[in-house]
Amino acid sequence: MEIAVLGTGIVGRSLAGRLHELGHHVVLGTRDPASTRERTDPDRMGNPPVSAWLAEHPDVELVTFADAATGADLVVVATNGQGTLAAVEAAGADAVAGKVVVDVSNPLDFSQGFPPTLFVKDTDSLAEQLQRGFSGARVVKTLNTMTAHVMVHPEEVGAGDHSVFVSGDDAAAKQTVTELLRSMGHTDVIDLGDLSTARGAEMYLPLWLRLMGSLGTPNIQVKIVR
Amino acid sequence: MEIAVLGTGIVGRSLAGRLHELGHHVVLGTRDPASTRERTDPDRMGNPPVSAWLAEHPDVELVTFADAATGADLVVVATNGQGTLAAVEAAGADAVAGKVVVDVSNPLDFSQGFPPTLFVKDTDSLAEQLQRGFSGARVVKTLNTMTAHVMVHPEEVGAGDHSVFVSGDDAAAKQTVTELLRSMGHTDVIDLGDLSTARGAEMYLPLWLRLMGSLGTPNIQVKIVR
Repeated sequence: MEIAVLGTGIVGRSLAGRLHELGHHVVLGTRDPASTRERTDPDRMGNPPVSAWLAEHPDVELVTFADAATGADLVVVATNGQGTLAAVEAAGADAVAGKVVVDVSNPLDFSQGFPPTLFVKDTDSLAEQLQRGFSGARVVKTLNTMTAHVMVHPEEVGAGDHSVFVSGDDAAAKQTVTELLRSMGHTDVIDLGDLSTARGAEMYLPLWLRLMGSLGTPNIQVKIVR
Repeated sequence: MEIAVLGTGIVGRSLAGRLHELGHHVVLGTRDPASTRERTDPDRMGNPPVSAWLAEHPDVELVTFADAATGADLVVVATNGQGTLAAVEAAGADAVAGKVVVDVSNPLDFSQGFPPTLFVKDTDSLAEQLQRGFSGARVVKTLNTMTAHVMVHPEEVGAGDHSVFVSGDDAAAKQTVTELLRSMGHTDVIDLGDLSTARGAEMYLPLWLRLMGSLGTPNIQVKIVR
């Protein structure tokens, strides 16, 4: 598949690298490729600059959000939640029309410090905002309930015996995403229902954040036992 | 232990019955014992009236919230979330002072239909409201992340291989509750931290509700894999 990953942070890089490894043609989208490439300092999480990652992944091209989305069959939005709508806006409504748009972002608001709160919740979700803003897109929410490394290497936590959720209004889009998730090693993909069920997946984040604090690692996952 | 369970719904009955079975002396608290005992219709969930349950549990006495809490070492608040603060208010601040108060309720608002929203969230929690309202109580949040039957018979879902959370500001109170949970069969009790971490546990409910809808059963549980 031709896949565009929007966002060059650790989530975008992890997904881009893994999807490339699985045989997809992947492009990485950013607002301004030249300035993104010029950064030489680690990001605020201590990750190396994108240029170092690109040097190790010569087959993954860094292009604008619009160029990335235009050539893609499937678009992954892997920005931080504050940038989700702006990234797809920059990509352009036409560029995502008719395409599966995978939203893995979380509506985290760090303005009051840690732990963050959610800037949309309970009666709405970031995924629904995205769908309303780009009605031609086929939005699927998934993977927001785990850290980047576990998204792409689920087998490294509990031998992969845990669950991932999908929410969306388009059954075929959810099926495409479910197959992608399985190809990355996710064995228990739970279809929560329509896109409004993303409210549940996004509201799990406050628990995840406390678990990370209490257990001292982000390498945790949720298994739905039934 | 002398345990007061406030609330005569299915959660209160389940906990009262199980704690009695485990050898504790249990009283069930309600606003007006006479009128509670007089009800002959099933409740809105289809559960039999309390009188039927009391007939099967002759050792569990039905008394007022105040009488229940006054004689207890530990108080379980098992009302629905809308009634949590009022139940403890009726019990009386003096009656809960110095005691472990186990809050298993959820701040669910059904006024707009199903699924419910949360009437407190993100920057506060029902457990914290309870603690602020009754500063002498030693509030511990737990068990709100599962259905009543699984609270008391965790072994019946996934052979008991799943997780339960505790949040609270009083370490000794959390230890007491952890031991109670283990005695009921909970094997993985995760201390999330201070009482503000109850925000995470309460905000999990919207996901739990969608999982129940999608999987078609309330007999589901979360296991934190790490």
